[in-house]
Parts: sequence; structure tokens; C-alpha cells
Amino acid sequence: MHVISQYQEFFIAYLNSQAIIKEPKNLYEPIDYILGLGGKRMRPVLTLMTAEVFNTDYKKALPAAMAVEVFHNFSLVHDDIMDDAPLRRGSETVHEKWNLNTGILSGDAMLILAYQYFEQYEPNVFRDLAKLFSKTAIEVCEGQQWDVDFETREDVTISEYLKMIEYKTAVLVAAAMKMGAIIAETSEENANLIYEFGLNLGLAFQLQDDYLDAFGDPETFGKQVGGDIIENKKTYLYLKAVAFSKKEEVEQLMHLFSVHPNDNSEKISSVKEIFNISGASKATQEAIQAYTFKAFDTLKKMDISEDKKAMLSAFGEKLMGRKV
Amino acid sequence: MHVISQYQEFFIAYLNSQAIIKEPKNLYEPIDYILGLGGKRMRPVLTLMTAEVFNTDYKKALPAAMAVEVFHNFSLVHDDIMDDAPLRRGSETVHEKWNLNTGILSGDAMLILAYQYFEQYEPNVFRDLAKLFSKTAIEVCEGQQWDVDFETREDVTISEYLKMIEYKTAVLVAAAMKMGAIIAETSEENANLIYEFGLNLGLAFQLQDDYLDAFGDPETFGKQVGGDIIENKKTYLYLKAVAFSKKEEVEQLMHLFSVHPNDNSEKISSVKEIFNISGASKATQEAIQAYTFKAFDTLKKMDISEDKKAMLSAFGEKLMGRKV
Repeated sequence: MHVISQYQEFFIAYLNSQAIIKEPKNLYEPIDYILGLGGKRMRPVLTLMTAEVFNTDYKKALPAAMAVEVFHNFSLVHDDIMDDAPLRRGSETVHEKWNLNTGILSGDAMLILAYQYFEQYEPNVFRDLAKLFSKTAIEVCEGQQWDVDFETREDVTISEYLKMIEYKTAVLVAAAMKMGAIIAETSEENANLIYEFGLNLGLAFQLQDDYLDAFGDPETFGKQVGGDIIENKKTYLYLKAVAFSKKEEVEQLMHLFSVHPNDNSEKISSVKEIFNISGASKATQEAIQAYTFKAFDTLKKMDISEDKKAMLSAFGEKLMGRKV
Repeated sequence: MHVISQYQEFFIAYLNSQAIIKEPKNLYEPIDYILGLGGKRMRPVLTLMTAEVFNTDYKKALPAAMAVEVFHNFSLVHDDIMDDAPLRRGSETVHEKWNLNTGILSGDAMLILAYQYFEQYEPNVFRDLAKLFSKTAIEVCEGQQWDVDFETREDVTISEYLKMIEYKTAVLVAAAMKMGAIIAETSEENANLIYEFGLNLGLAFQLQDDYLDAFGDPETFGKQVGGDIIENKKTYLYLKAVAFSKKEEVEQLMHLFSVHPNDNSEKISSVKEIFNISGASKATQEAIQAYTFKAFDTLKKMDISEDKKAMLSAFGEKLMGRKV
């Protein structure tokens, strides 16, 4: 086994060894650009780590890890178009740096390239990986569609919201880990348990993202604190605040989430106050805890040595402490 | 064996039996819509027919035929966005009827759904189909990128143009047929020969499309005759006319291909005259003939009965006579 920073290094070395750019350059240069923008490489690291958890050299998992990272970046490129986002990881988004058509077409190519990385495995493993990948990819599309739909709906329930973040975010974390298990050819039970571990950790991670977006430290969060509030995004915090508040506070909150003031500082502090007073902040923290515990609980059932469990726990704790 | 119209019926019955629409409806309704717009279903018909050419029941080829048709429609949805096209087969395009984001996301989902249809085959066949599909899909993206790039280039060569239409159009026709061969588990030689047959027929078909766009019968062509000339599209006819003409005519042609008059009738007739006088029309007809003959020539090498060869020839002749 290795430590997380080593898996990151192994993955980046593999990524850098791939000759992405070829003709037609206008198709492949944007792919090379977005893959080079960095990020924590959390998903591919999980694929490599999981292969070793199930006693298989991480090297065997590198192509699948690459598929996961290429797919993740495909979804970023197309989501950035849909959100009309100018920046990604502090750099211009693909459709900003090039244009809309390049964003669409390079994204399409990345989705196909991701599948091609599975061709390096033998037929049965290839089939299992590609099947899991397709199921996951279609769920990510469904999650994105729900996210878009929710923007114009006022009656989104907590369970609908949880389903949305499960599909949009958590299933890819879960699948990244299960791919490591498939490559290691461990038992189906272990593969399903590691999927559950990843799914719950992914849910905890996304709920924590909602929480930190309002209450995080601007120095360490990485994104603009209050961004969701500025964009009137109905996150878990908002839905819980609506559920917990009396009619008057609900109306105030809904009013605050209908305006776009030039200076957002007052809006942000008012919304955060309602999040706190209503008990939404506490409920969100409890949900994060609950999903994290649920993840760690599935570890116990797994047929692996204690040091492997400790490794996965450490990753989970590091992730939830946002030090990955 | 069956006749072409029967394969069309078999495919449409299969398509109609698929429950495409589910939640989230905004993702799946556009997919159902575009798949229901019709068309000749040429590609899936080729998959079914090829399976039977190699002595396998067409029913076994239905999921692969569906994958090919879903992929083809994915490319139409995304291409229509890139071309800002309002109409497809006489109906509103997806991004017009819904919006840009729906066009992107539903297209993405279709690309993934196409892969999922291969899951109905056993691992070795699945792998061969998915590999061929990925190779083809990435080539279609490259062809589309070249097509976009060529719009702003004045130095496109005939061989670059042929490569572009090969990738953008012909490889999918070829792959549709090879998939039938893979499902029938015929010899690799036969599978490669049928790919060659499809590729050359696809090239002939696309060159004929270029030709008919200028010289076709408005009653039967299906698209607006002169459309490529109106849009200043550098087709095979144009490139050959530039290659064959003297400096003065080249300049006249390049001038005509830089303007967007309100009334196009004079522009269209002037351009067509140059196409005829320069010998470009004749050269295009000869190229169509040459690729069609090349296709029929590969048939001769194939290890199948004479009635099967006759069937494929009949399809080719029908296609080139545009009676499919």
C-alpha cells in the first residue's frame, strides 16, 4: 500500500505519459488543457487505492483510473457550458477559451476516450468495467438533468435532493472504487461493499460541500464562500431551513432566494443566520456525520485485513477533513 | 434473407418496443423525439442485413442496430447545435424545441445508451462491438472537427476533404455492417471485407450527396437543392472546380463563395455553370462511380453465396439510385 500523495503522483505520471494531442488539434488540445488543469485527482486515486486494498498492483488499475478522470473532466466541460461558467479551477473554461462548439465536441470525444481506456483489460473485466461505467455515466446525466430541473421548481423534497446529489456526484466516487475491485477480481460482495462505502462517502462529501459553501473558511475552501447563496441554489441547507422554519421565516428565505443584489454581503449573512437559527446547519452537520458513519460501517463487513480498513478510514477522514 | 423494406419494418418495430421515456422526463423525451423523427434507417438496416448475409438471424443483431441508430441520432443532435440548424427532417431540432442545455445533455445520454445496447451480447462479442464502436465514434468526432476547421480554411486539399467525409460519414456505414459480421461471428477476413464494402459505399453516397445538392431533382432529393452553395460549403464539387479552373474562374468562384445574397438563384446558377464547365461535375460523377465499383469489387472477394452477394449489390444499387 501507498499513501494518498503517492497515488496522486503515480496517477499524474501516467496522465503525463499519455500522448493526448494529435490531429485534428482543435479537438484534442482542449482535452489536454482541461486534463492538465489539476485538481485533487480524488476519483482516480480511489481506483488505484482500491485495487491495492484488494491485493492487486495499482499499476493494473491505471487505465481504469484514467477513464474515470477523463469522464469526470468530460462532465466538467459540458456542465460548464450549461452553467455558463467562465472559470474552472481558476482558469478559463473550455468553451470560454475556445468556443461553444469546441466545448461540445471535445467533451463528446472525452466520453468516448474514457471507454477506450477499458480496452486494455481482458474481455470479462472489460465488460464489467464498461457496464458499470455506462450505468454510472447515465446516472450522472440524470443527476445533472434533475439539478437543472430543480432550478425552476419550488417543491423539491429532501429525498429528491439527496437522489440528485447521489446521481450527480456520489455514484462516480462509488464506481471509481468498484472499478478497482473489479480489476482486482475480488468477490462480488466486496465489490458491492466498496461501492456502498464510496457512495456514502460521496454523499457525505457533497453535503459537506453544501455546508462549507456557506460556512467554510475562505482561506481553505477553494471556491467563493457564499457562492450557492449568491446563485440562489437550493442546497440541503436551504431545503432543511424551509422545512424547519415557520411561515414568516420561510417567506423571508424565499424572498432572499429570489433577488440578485449588487452587494451580496447582507444577503449572505441574513441567509446564514436563518440556516443557523432554523437548525438547518445542525441538521446538515448531522447528515454529514450519518453518511460518514454509514460509510465506515460498511468497511467493517468487508473481507480485508485491518490495515487495509485503516487505509480506507484514513482516506475518508482526510477527505472529510478536506486535507486530500 | 429479407428485402430492405422488411428490415426497415423489423427495426422500427424493435425501436417502438423500447421504453425510452422515463424519469427525468426532460432528459429522455428529447431522445424519444429525435429517434421518432424517422429517416431511412439505413445504418441499422445494414447491421441486420449483414448479420443475415453471414447466416445469422437478424433478430440477434437488433440491439447493435439500435446502438448504431442511437449513436447516429446523438451525432445529429450535437451537430445541429454546432450548425445552429432550426430543422431536422422537417421538424424542429432538439435544441430549438427545448434548449441548448437539453440538446447537449440528451445527446450525451444517447452516446451512453448506445454503448448499453451492446451489453446484451456475450463478453467477447461485447468487447469487439464496443471497441469498433468507440473507434468509429471518435473518428466521427474527428471528421466533424475537420468539417468545422475547413469552414475557415482556404487551402483544403481533395485528399483532406475525402478523409473528412470518410470519418464524418463513411466509417459509421462501414461499422454498421461490420457489427453484423461480428455478431454472426464470421471470419475476420469477411468482417474486414464487409467494412471495406461499407466504407466505399459510404464515400460514394456522401459524394453523391454533394453532387445531388447542386444537381439533384428538388422533387426527390429531400433537402433544399443548392443548400451547400447558399452556405458556401466547400464540397468535392467546389474543390474540384478550383483545382480544374484557370485563375480568373477560381477568383470568380471564390468571390461567389464569399457572399450571402438575399436572392440566391443567380448565385446558384453561376456556381453550377462553373461546376459544369470546369469539369468538376464530371469528375465528381466519376469519383462516385469509382467508389461504387470499388465497393462492389470487395464483394467478389467475400466468402459468401452468390445470392448474398446479389442482395448486397442490390442494396448498393438501390442506395446509389436513392430509392432506399
